[in-house]
Amino acid sequence: MKIYRYPSKNNWQEMVERPVFKREEISETIAAIFNEVTEKKDQALFSFNEKFDGVRLESITVTEAEIKKAEDIISEELKQAIRQAKENISKFHAAQQSAIEKIETTAGVTCWRETRAIEKVGIYIPGGTAPLFSTVLMLAIPAQLAGCKEIILCTPPDKDGNVHPAILYAARLCGVSRLFKVGGAQAIAAMTLGTESIPQVYKIFGPGNQFVVAAKEYAQRYGVAIDMPAGPSEVLVIADQQAVPAFCAADLLSQAEHGSDSQVVFIATDLTVFSETIAAVEEQVLQLPRNELAKNALENSYCILLNTIEEAFEFSNLYAPEHLILAIDNFEKYLPFIQNAGSVFLGNYSCESAGDYASGTNHTLPTNGFAKNYSGVSLDSFVKKITFQHLSKEGLENLGNTIEIMAEEEGLFAHKNAVTIRLK
Amino acid sequence: MKIYRYPSKNNWQEMVERPVFKREEISETIAAIFNEVTEKKDQALFSFNEKFDGVRLESITVTEAEIKKAEDIISEELKQAIRQAKENISKFHAAQQSAIEKIETTAGVTCWRETRAIEKVGIYIPGGTAPLFSTVLMLAIPAQLAGCKEIILCTPPDKDGNVHPAILYAARLCGVSRLFKVGGAQAIAAMTLGTESIPQVYKIFGPGNQFVVAAKEYAQRYGVAIDMPAGPSEVLVIADQQAVPAFCAADLLSQAEHGSDSQVVFIATDLTVFSETIAAVEEQVLQLPRNELAKNALENSYCILLNTIEEAFEFSNLYAPEHLILAIDNFEKYLPFIQNAGSVFLGNYSCESAGDYASGTNHTLPTNGFAKNYSGVSLDSFVKKITFQHLSKEGLENLGNTIEIMAEEEGLFAHKNAVTIRLK
Repeated sequence: MKIYRYPSKNNWQEMVERPVFKREEISETIAAIFNEVTEKKDQALFSFNEKFDGVRLESITVTEAEIKKAEDIISEELKQAIRQAKENISKFHAAQQSAIEKIETTAGVTCWRETRAIEKVGIYIPGGTAPLFSTVLMLAIPAQLAGCKEIILCTPPDKDGNVHPAILYAARLCGVSRLFKVGGAQAIAAMTLGTESIPQVYKIFGPGNQFVVAAKEYAQRYGVAIDMPAGPSEVLVIADQQAVPAFCAADLLSQAEHGSDSQVVFIATDLTVFSETIAAVEEQVLQLPRNELAKNALENSYCILLNTIEEAFEFSNLYAPEHLILAIDNFEKYLPFIQNAGSVFLGNYSCESAGDYASGTNHTLPTNGFAKNYSGVSLDSFVKKITFQHLSKEGLENLGNTIEIMAEEEGLFAHKNAVTIRLK
Repeated sequence: MKIYRYPSKNNWQEMVERPVFKREEISETIAAIFNEVTEKKDQALFSFNEKFDGVRLESITVTEAEIKKAEDIISEELKQAIRQAKENISKFHAAQQSAIEKIETTAGVTCWRETRAIEKVGIYIPGGTAPLFSTVLMLAIPAQLAGCKEIILCTPPDKDGNVHPAILYAARLCGVSRLFKVGGAQAIAAMTLGTESIPQVYKIFGPGNQFVVAAKEYAQRYGVAIDMPAGPSEVLVIADQQAVPAFCAADLLSQAEHGSDSQVVFIATDLTVFSETIAAVEEQVLQLPRNELAKNALENSYCILLNTIEEAFEFSNLYAPEHLILAIDNFEKYLPFIQNAGSVFLGNYSCESAGDYASGTNHTLPTNGFAKNYSGVSLDSFVKKITFQHLSKEGLENLGNTIEIMAEEEGLFAHKNAVTIRLK
């Protein structure tokens, strides 16, 4: 980790720039995959499975028997943990439902919004180093609460053609209608275009490698919506004199272990906490099974010593972190200072992993500075809000003149006439 | 208008496909414009003004004197109309503010969301055939209500270097901080990249021609968010026996006059209303100043005679119209049938132009079938929702085991350790 002591504000803008990773030019690969799936549909997916996952499947669709078997395999302890997480995530997201409120803007003119689920949604769960069944919970639970009719899930099979049982269990528990053993850009193409097995969806959610990310961008050309733009995961921790260095270090590392491209930023206003946290990171990292990834991530990361908590928030807002941990006294007072962040963790016992798994908040969050202009996934991500209006004859009489004047000034006489013809 | 009498459901999917307009390959042009603005900044904008707008400006920034002059020029009647529209739009959008609700998901674990404005937003208002000051209201009012600190607006100058006074008046009235005389893709590039005069923004809103649309797509590569994908405007009217043919025709035409690429769809369940509406369209269109545009739009449009209102909704949901007008009896009963639509107008006096200008709802809506997966612009479009959580020591004790089990199963031991180290 780089160390900055009281850096000049002139350098902050440069500091908050995210590390630039060489992004390979893969758009031709993605276009080729979409073309292949358009032409050959399921057959293309079988071939991709063979090529990328090293397995020849007989069916892409996960069977009822496989789901049953998964339920038998996984421990009661894990099931219980998943159920507690589900309960909390459900509670938090259910509270995001909004009541219909009718507003009479002018006498006889009533306007309101109603919520409708996006009918068909697709969830992508990557394979790779970690079986992210927690992400199944984070995406399927709000989809089900929203009332999406079709919730499908694609995830790559392992070399034996299987999917991790915890992914199957979580998917079934949270109302996923159908699961498919397809990974990578081809899974995104299949959900965008539809194949014999996989239905077309209207919105695609979920994390993935650079091919998946590029495929989600590409899918938008076909009118499919996506959850949000993607980037490497990150955390920013602000600590004062009462912070516990060992806790701060553990939080920094739990972000760093996500991958070599993760970034962690530590800001302290107290010299002892600053030094001890840096020492604790160096000590704790050695004990991690994934310490190679974490060490790489730490090379992209830095610690800053600043004079005041106010300055720390100023820096944090410029950085716009995905996760922001406030290991500070009197954090309530500072909430209004927060402008840009994905999810905020308050006090010494609110570790990021609580939000990653089980507290109830969503862990699909804007990274890479996107916290300046995007929200994390919520119930809203799975619905549209439709506006409604009713004008009585009296309502149109009260508003008609205004509409006619404005329409005429814009040169839109048919707009004007739609009022005039009703009022005469 | 094409006429379909009782078309088979097998043909509906084909019918709802939007007319495909030849989209020129303009991505190279857009990339060149972005490069030019990156390199030459304001100087590039001056050159583009000369090239595309036929005017050599001394300054891109609209002056205080110009705004004052605009206020003097426009009639009191128009000002009054704009103020009434502003009041209604403000009422409707202010009601979309949500209170903070703290949820205790597990004893000692409290989660909530808080709203923060997107700090810097840019509004694009096209020039061309209609001075869209109504769109200024629709975008600047929620931006100001949301608390956006910087609200800038770009719009092309006319041949004399001026901007329509109603645009200036509406912008000043609704809290636009600064206005700039720049149009087209170069305006989008300037708001994305920043120049000496024009500040960089985090999100760009507003309609435009194919160059503006392509530039907004392109801007996203730089991390800028946009309001929504664009497409030609459209309306679908459902009418039963009590509908008034002259009103239906006026509504169809007020959509058709937007542009040659607009599409209007008329569905009736009553033969008399069906025939009389078609006749009324043919009659009314002759009286319109913009009848060439409207006639072209009608060529892409169609009328459908169906047996039942239920079928009409089935078709409408498949079409997913931007605007949906229900000229039917007992419309309340049918609201739950609506799945996909941008904005809905109820009964014989709720003409679309009410929502376009002054009832209070937003007129920036998803077109081209995007009502399946996108909402229209609302207060939410100008904010992020940040999640917060606080775990007390007891809270972490209640939830810690669940987090540890899940993290271990995902192979993320640093995530687990962030809990373990706090609890031991």
